[in-house]
Amino acid sequence: MNGAHSLLTTLVGAGVDVCFANPGTSEMHFVAALDTVGGMRGVLTLFEGVATGAADGYARIAGTPAAVLLHLGPGLGNGLANLHNARRAHTPMVVVVGDHATYHKKYDAPLESDIDAVAGSVSGWVHRTLRPGDVAADTVAALEAARRGVVSTLILPADVSWSDGATSAEREATGTVGAERGDGFALDGILDDDAVRVAASALRSGERTVLLIGGDATHGPGLAAAVRIGEATGATVLCETFPARLERGAGVPAVERLAYFAEAAAEQLAGARHLVLAGAVSPVSFFAYPGKPSDLVPDGCTVHTLASHRGAAAALEHLADEVAPGSTATVAPAARPDLPTGELNAFAAATVIGALLPEGAIVVDESNTAGVGVAAATAGAPAHDVLTLTGGAIGYGIPAAVGAAIAAPDRPVVSLQADGSALYTLSALWTQARENLDVTTVIFNNGAYDILRIELQRVGAGSGAQPGPKARELLDLGSPAIDFVRIAEGLGVPGRRVRTAEELTAALADAFAEPGPHLIDAIVPSLLS
Amino acid sequence: MNGAHSLLTTLVGAGVDVCFANPGTSEMHFVAALDTVGGMRGVLTLFEGVATGAADGYARIAGTPAAVLLHLGPGLGNGLANLHNARRAHTPMVVVVGDHATYHKKYDAPLESDIDAVAGSVSGWVHRTLRPGDVAADTVAALEAARRGVVSTLILPADVSWSDGATSAEREATGTVGAERGDGFALDGILDDDAVRVAASALRSGERTVLLIGGDATHGPGLAAAVRIGEATGATVLCETFPARLERGAGVPAVERLAYFAEAAAEQLAGARHLVLAGAVSPVSFFAYPGKPSDLVPDGCTVHTLASHRGAAAALEHLADEVAPGSTATVAPAARPDLPTGELNAFAAATVIGALLPEGAIVVDESNTAGVGVAAATAGAPAHDVLTLTGGAIGYGIPAAVGAAIAAPDRPVVSLQADGSALYTLSALWTQARENLDVTTVIFNNGAYDILRIELQRVGAGSGAQPGPKARELLDLGSPAIDFVRIAEGLGVPGRRVRTAEELTAALADAFAEPGPHLIDAIVPSLLS
Repeated sequence: MNGAHSLLTTLVGAGVDVCFANPGTSEMHFVAALDTVGGMRGVLTLFEGVATGAADGYARIAGTPAAVLLHLGPGLGNGLANLHNARRAHTPMVVVVGDHATYHKKYDAPLESDIDAVAGSVSGWVHRTLRPGDVAADTVAALEAARRGVVSTLILPADVSWSDGATSAEREATGTVGAERGDGFALDGILDDDAVRVAASALRSGERTVLLIGGDATHGPGLAAAVRIGEATGATVLCETFPARLERGAGVPAVERLAYFAEAAAEQLAGARHLVLAGAVSPVSFFAYPGKPSDLVPDGCTVHTLASHRGAAAALEHLADEVAPGSTATVAPAARPDLPTGELNAFAAATVIGALLPEGAIVVDESNTAGVGVAAATAGAPAHDVLTLTGGAIGYGIPAAVGAAIAAPDRPVVSLQADGSALYTLSALWTQARENLDVTTVIFNNGAYDILRIELQRVGAGSGAQPGPKARELLDLGSPAIDFVRIAEGLGVPGRRVRTAEELTAALADAFAEPGPHLIDAIVPSLLS
Repeated sequence: MNGAHSLLTTLVGAGVDVCFANPGTSEMHFVAALDTVGGMRGVLTLFEGVATGAADGYARIAGTPAAVLLHLGPGLGNGLANLHNARRAHTPMVVVVGDHATYHKKYDAPLESDIDAVAGSVSGWVHRTLRPGDVAADTVAALEAARRGVVSTLILPADVSWSDGATSAEREATGTVGAERGDGFALDGILDDDAVRVAASALRSGERTVLLIGGDATHGPGLAAAVRIGEATGATVLCETFPARLERGAGVPAVERLAYFAEAAAEQLAGARHLVLAGAVSPVSFFAYPGKPSDLVPDGCTVHTLASHRGAAAALEHLADEVAPGSTATVAPAARPDLPTGELNAFAAATVIGALLPEGAIVVDESNTAGVGVAAATAGAPAHDVLTLTGGAIGYGIPAAVGAAIAAPDRPVVSLQADGSALYTLSALWTQARENLDVTTVIFNNGAYDILRIELQRVGAGSGAQPGPKARELLDLGSPAIDFVRIAEGLGVPGRRVRTAEELTAALADAFAEPGPHLIDAIVPSLLS
């Protein structure tokens, strides 16, 4: 068999059966092999950033990696921003980058570039396979690394893909890789008894303690353990600002997220003498601001690391059994807001979403500033998962919704999207239409990079004066106004524009009632207007 | 003054007065400085790949660099593919990548990544400025490098941008950088007398000689010299496959381009005993194909390098004076094809374009397979410039048209665009609308990645059999069909769909008659159907 067959056989044998792809000439044997090797679903995207974002959304929901197929260095570059997000979210992913044939590279053909250097900036594992006979073992190694929560990049030269001499690795994959599945804790999240003791002692100190959770502690057992700890000891439980996947809503133990704006985060942490990290990193300001601290840990606060992103839930359970034996976590009560009426704004839109969010929804949240009201409005909605912009690289939401919907075809996906970031990877809507995915996209269309209007003031640019006309123009999306309904329709997704709470209510109800993709262009005023 | 002011003052002082931007928080002081430092036009794009492609198109027409403003590593990643094209085209460009504040980097905030590594893959010059006082000198150095035909990347930490202590470099910029402008030959294209003698000897040998031109030899004087040489010696004159800017049409000395498909290129070069390179690199196959040579130089052919990409025109003029003294180059006669009628296909569409191409047009050609008929149909159209996909990274055309139109506001820009690559950087249409640019985009909409259907067969994937259904599906853009008219309208550009030659004729005539952006969605059958 050739290298392409070996790669596909190995992936499928290890349970990786979805590949988000934007192939080119050097990947044609991989594409052809999809028909000879059964069991792999190829999902076409119109841009590599959609493929990588979809694979991220997929893995956050499925818990297992998807494969991504990219074309040479420029294709990897196009997919880089969402690989950055995946890296920050510890998302398992196997990225296959097709390269020129080994013997062709020395000719420096037009598309030649340093793939390894670019891949290294986002990948926890990078390897270039040089012989067909190595493809199976290299693929297994890529999968092993991915399942530890990194982006694995396998660079596959075209001749390695098309040449014979490769083998099937079904056995190795089942043996080596399968053992790792679903048991992350045992691998790199070895329970640290000392860390549990230190954390317990901090929690019992009587001094203000904050427990900051992240990684695998932001769903099910991790949340329950964290809330038990908080309730038994009086510690404040916070979740990292942009969790990869946060379970919340009615019946789920509720945790507040650490605020994005450093000023607000500093308030949440004020007075803490102990900060216990369980799957989260020590909090820092997203950006630096003149004269303001980057490190958000208050003076006099000691940081204790209980666990890293894997094994955090298990460590919290141990800690809960230590400081809150036999207790049960309080869960959020079911509570929907009343449907608002009248003019639509960011808060009214959030309220409508909270009132109507379907059972078991996956909320992909890239609503940025305009989504300021969503968390409160959905706190008592039926239990749902929220995927957030973990790495901060915009253009994540619409692609991630593709992946989430493919990972969980029976769950409705609600994609909350700011207008500015929607425009990065809009073509993901087409893949939603092509695959008939049950995704409802709500564009919070305020006609501006509203976050940057706020940041322009926060960094003190313009010396406190109002920004000048050129600066304002560079943050304005309203001239000409962008018509997301037409764009969605052009990409095969039915769209509808709404300007009142009643219109949004009707549009959302219709979208939730009818399977398949829908887009709602919700016109809302800027938060600054 | 702060670093941002210093940077802007230095750029403007050196004649760089356009900046294509997609800023973020770390660039807010640069944005604010646009209002306090006069003379810089900030052009907002909705995606970084649009900014970098626009800067490439701008510099290819203006001959001087534009600046690009990008946000951190993910922003650079989004712009990488078109920076790759710029690198391959030797386009002068100054890329400013805003980074976290120097003291903030150690906190590994969510958007932290290895900007330097990624920038290195496309830049001929990369530097990180660490003190406000260095900004002016570093900017001058970036400009000097850019003007030698590379992408210069200046990484500017936010605190260097906002802190005082910087100086104006107007004098240095005028002195150091200005001297370089317009005189590339003297700098790195030192005339090599030996190379001229060797080339002359080859041309006089009586053996078949091919003169392959590129770099600065693809317009005006370079073309004239090359054609004089060909006419006097019988040498075949060819132009590199994807020239950065090729001047052609009525009144311009005509050269054929080296074919994209290796088989066709091999035919053009067959029997050559000498290959003289003037501004072009030795020809290689774009991709490797099983059992086919990568190196397109025929057996027994000696390669002589006359000049690299800069100084090629001057070297050719010396060579022409040596082997063809006193001669004048034949120019292409004015000759427009008759307007076709009936069903539209790729050739009929090309014929309509050839019949109507306006005087002085700039043709941005990313029509790929569907543009197969364009070169022949426009050979006798009024003189025009053609910008091509030099680096092979798709998603170039619509952004490059933005830059070309800004560089030459009095010239009509005709953007010929394949459907698949159009979908990479579609949002460039919005910038065309916002800036009211005179760009007519023709989408060759065949509903497929037609080039890949061809390549799938050429690489022998599927062992000569027809591709299977999964492979075909991954190359298909027809399900759902993409409606470029609606998408264009959603982005503020009027659109029109055409299905016959007559409809295309009417739509093109209207678009050329009315200034401002237009899009024509030309439905054509696949070349393989």
